Amino acid sequence: MANSITRYLPILDWGRRYDRAAFGADMIAAVIVTIMLIPQSLAYALLAGLPPEAGLYASIVPILAYAVFGTSRALAVGPVAVVSLMTAAAIGQVAEAGTIGYAAAALTLALLSGAMLLALGLLRLGFIANFLSHPVIAGFITASGILIATSQLKHILGVEASGHTLPEMLHGLWTHLPETSLPTLVIGVSATAFLFWVRKGLKPLLIRFGLSQGAAGIATKAGPVLAVVVTTALVALLGLQDRGVSIVGAVPQSLPPLTLPPLSFELLSALAVPALLISVIGFVESISVAQTLAAKKRQRIDPDQELIGLGAANIGAAFTGGYPVTGGFARSVVNFDAGAETPAAGAFTAIGLAIAALALTPLVFFLPKATLAATIIVAVLSLVDFKILRTAWTYNRADFAAVAATIALTLGFGVETGVSSGVILSIALHLWRSARPHVAEVGLVPGTQHFRNLKRHEVDLHPEVLTLRIDEALWFANARFLEDLILDRLATNAKLREVVLMCSAVNNIDLSALESLEAINARLADQGIRLHLSEVKGPVMDRLKRSHFLDALSGKVFLSQYDAWTSICDGCDSRKAAE
Amino acid sequence: MANSITRYLPILDWGRRYDRAAFGADMIAAVIVTIMLIPQSLAYALLAGLPPEAGLYASIVPILAYAVFGTSRALAVGPVAVVSLMTAAAIGQVAEAGTIGYAAAALTLALLSGAMLLALGLLRLGFIANFLSHPVIAGFITASGILIATSQLKHILGVEASGHTLPEMLHGLWTHLPETSLPTLVIGVSATAFLFWVRKGLKPLLIRFGLSQGAAGIATKAGPVLAVVVTTALVALLGLQDRGVSIVGAVPQSLPPLTLPPLSFELLSALAVPALLISVIGFVESISVAQTLAAKKRQRIDPDQELIGLGAANIGAAFTGGYPVTGGFARSVVNFDAGAETPAAGAFTAIGLAIAALALTPLVFFLPKATLAATIIVAVLSLVDFKILRTAWTYNRADFAAVAATIALTLGFGVETGVSSGVILSIALHLWRSARPHVAEVGLVPGTQHFRNLKRHEVDLHPEVLTLRIDEALWFANARFLEDLILDRLATNAKLREVVLMCSAVNNIDLSALESLEAINARLADQGIRLHLSEVKGPVMDRLKRSHFLDALSGKVFLSQYDAWTSICDGCDSRKAAE
Repeated sequence: MANSITRYLPILDWGRRYDRAAFGADMIAAVIVTIMLIPQSLAYALLAGLPPEAGLYASIVPILAYAVFGTSRALAVGPVAVVSLMTAAAIGQVAEAGTIGYAAAALTLALLSGAMLLALGLLRLGFIANFLSHPVIAGFITASGILIATSQLKHILGVEASGHTLPEMLHGLWTHLPETSLPTLVIGVSATAFLFWVRKGLKPLLIRFGLSQGAAGIATKAGPVLAVVVTTALVALLGLQDRGVSIVGAVPQSLPPLTLPPLSFELLSALAVPALLISVIGFVESISVAQTLAAKKRQRIDPDQELIGLGAANIGAAFTGGYPVTGGFARSVVNFDAGAETPAAGAFTAIGLAIAALALTPLVFFLPKATLAATIIVAVLSLVDFKILRTAWTYNRADFAAVAATIALTLGFGVETGVSSGVILSIALHLWRSARPHVAEVGLVPGTQHFRNLKRHEVDLHPEVLTLRIDEALWFANARFLEDLILDRLATNAKLREVVLMCSAVNNIDLSALESLEAINARLADQGIRLHLSEVKGPVMDRLKRSHFLDALSGKVFLSQYDAWTSICDGCDSRKAAE
Repeated sequence: MANSITRYLPILDWGRRYDRAAFGADMIAAVIVTIMLIPQSLAYALLAGLPPEAGLYASIVPILAYAVFGTSRALAVGPVAVVSLMTAAAIGQVAEAGTIGYAAAALTLALLSGAMLLALGLLRLGFIANFLSHPVIAGFITASGILIATSQLKHILGVEASGHTLPEMLHGLWTHLPETSLPTLVIGVSATAFLFWVRKGLKPLLIRFGLSQGAAGIATKAGPVLAVVVTTALVALLGLQDRGVSIVGAVPQSLPPLTLPPLSFELLSALAVPALLISVIGFVESISVAQTLAAKKRQRIDPDQELIGLGAANIGAAFTGGYPVTGGFARSVVNFDAGAETPAAGAFTAIGLAIAALALTPLVFFLPKATLAATIIVAVLSLVDFKILRTAWTYNRADFAAVAATIALTLGFGVETGVSSGVILSIALHLWRSARPHVAEVGLVPGTQHFRNLKRHEVDLHPEVLTLRIDEALWFANARFLEDLILDRLATNAKLREVVLMCSAVNNIDLSALESLEAINARLADQGIRLHLSEVKGPVMDRLKRSHFLDALSGKVFLSQYDAWTSICDGCDSRKAAE
């Protein structure tokens, strides 16, 4: 009982052993992460099309909820780039950006996503995330990075434009290009260039000046804060807001408000599929980060409990003015590198952000949106990686097709179409492959008891015996294929007296395939040919014993192919001798 | 070139060799099939909710079209029970039964289905029918038989009722039960009882009177004609049509009319999914019949050309007042048993039916609908077979789940939901199974070179070596599973120095799984443990060679597991000796 409570409330486990040393480590990590999160939260809210404070709110209660239910020690939960983009795409279909309905739909989306994650976790269905293949995820993340960066160009140019696909965005930017605001462009381009330099050039510089690798890494994360301070001051001093520079403006000074997500049937059904996609993508991103970090300290992550933790975080976001959240890569790595020991670091971060929401929001009044856009662009361009295309192309055309389709469809038709098509296509390609199995005719490798493909190895054969190794589970999609293949083989070989199916790679035989085997057995028997099986695996044999197939089988079932070979060939030879 | 024309026009092949003997055989078969088809065509049109002549028309041009393009010598194409039921369900959603729009929608459905079949055939995609598993088909046919028989009870009772699911039909019958027409009930029950007797009792009787098995079988097929003649005469003589007996009424005396299927976008999109299901189900039914009959005469069926033949037949139906057709089981078996030699038998049948449509239609004016319903009920109850449930239950729970769900959903929610759910469920169960592969720890069977599961066989093991046989292709859905499994194994065995993955059953390694293998290799190397592979299949090895995995692999790749065993164990022992 105690055990099961601890499983669902990991806080009871680490909380009991919490000490001063861990407290100190967690506090330091929290301060660093808080400083990094303030501009990031505002920026991702902008990306999601929400008021800036929504980003802060989405970082406060969700972190606390995850600290109670999550199993990762270092994961930092909050708004992340890809989920923010998916949120914008989802609620853009049900409400106009900037309206109250839009912010309310974001709450509903968070609630739906939280409920789904929680349900998947309680039902222990975390493994469904495995159906997102690595190439599909890699392709989706790359395409999303491009979409996100492109979506921010309008803020750099200082123009109005919209769209959820690359062609729409580019068309919008092109149409509005003449309206470019020069001061905005200067701020945006300078901020972007500065942040790129911080990322690429500052860290080696700091290390040369004697900072440790870790400290230099953390210091560079403060780059966005510096950019925010400088550009905000610039706008305020020069009054650039009156010369076309879009600013964040008034942000309420408030703790996260208590909000009630609207729950109309219409809204729920419109958001159900997007919520599912956001949940799965968010979970996959979060669990990868959590497992990477846990492995470094030989800690364990429980995927099903992670679903519960993320579910609680999203439900928390729904009721406190936030929007869908997940475990973010950048913030978690900073948290980990800064020495966070327990989820309490997250709780302290939440307190820091709450103070920021109460006290610091007036300071961002003059913050130019172009600066936030620059932080987003620099952050997401590190997600873009086309190497996966080359890797997949050399390794496996099916994987290549999946990744190429995912990238193309995400860019061309938006995030939802892209990721769903990628998943469906990768499953379809898998089914297609296993519906047309590889079958090899095998013979004995001389001097061994080992049998291999006669096309690849020098092997011994017997003219009256055909041994086929079937390289696939036998199931309904390939049942007829095997039937056709064996009957075709018969037609071309008149001497044949014995057929052996070597089943070392037959991992399953379903009812459809069993019926095909029965048909093959009967057809061979009609022509006076015996059918044998060899190396049938235990679980498959158990099942065959429950059917009538073994009674009807004209030949035998041999433990090993070598047994089959010696026994059958002896038979052939003696039969020949008797003739 | 000539070859390719013959492939697409099989008539050129058999037509060239057509002779007097074949002509005689085909004529006899055609006469028998024509007599059987007249009542059957009228009845199936009734089942589809169409005017009776639609059934005749659907049997004329489609047969001719199939004779030109089809590859089966004995297949008889026309309206069949299951497709008629699916037609009623599909067009019932877009038009009211009995209206002109309803009959027109049936033409569009036939055209769509024909176009789809043709496209699948030309693209050589006939294998997609393999994704319908045998248990799903068996369950669907059984449930359809029940639905069809139930749908006809209203004609036996002489009441109005409607519905496409079992609960709807039963509710309708129950509500209208008080309106039962007694004369109709008498005719319906007598006809049903008579036809059951013909099927069960007449054949043995005829055989006892000296008829051959085949002749007796064919004679019993004339039972429905006798029932039609007697009940029609009865109604006409007693004027029962004025006492509540529903009759067929006026049927136009005409050859099949030239019709143009309506092609509005709305109608096409509403019928697209039903048309696809009808095409696939129709194709599966037709190809099974064709292959069964072809096998008896050692002839060959080309599935892709069959798609073209059925496509042509359906397009023919669409333009001549018919509705979706396919190769029927009962009519094809009769055609075959009656001695049909070539598709010309079908052409002669078409001529016979055309004569019937021109000359005999006035004779069916007084034919009671209850008699037609009786012929349908008796025909379809032979489709109902619950044995598949027991077979599946003993053999494989996944197959059982698929068949049970197909039956339940077809009865409860109609044919389209039923068959789609069955297909999706059976694929999902297959994916689910291969996402959680069977992995066995294996050892050497003493005195052989063969390795088996230590839980099932007495085998030799080595304390420093762990050999795992993975019984599944490695792909994205199980990539993480393998990673977790191996790392869990490490935790419980401190002595371990060598891990061998025996890949005899690994039929594929996709990119996601390759990344997992790389991660496993790295993790093992961290702990000073070497990773080896053995018995990697040719196609898998080809692919691995194109990646960097083999360079990074800490151990070796062995041709056979026995090589791995001897080489590694020698190494272990000498290492031990050196210590």
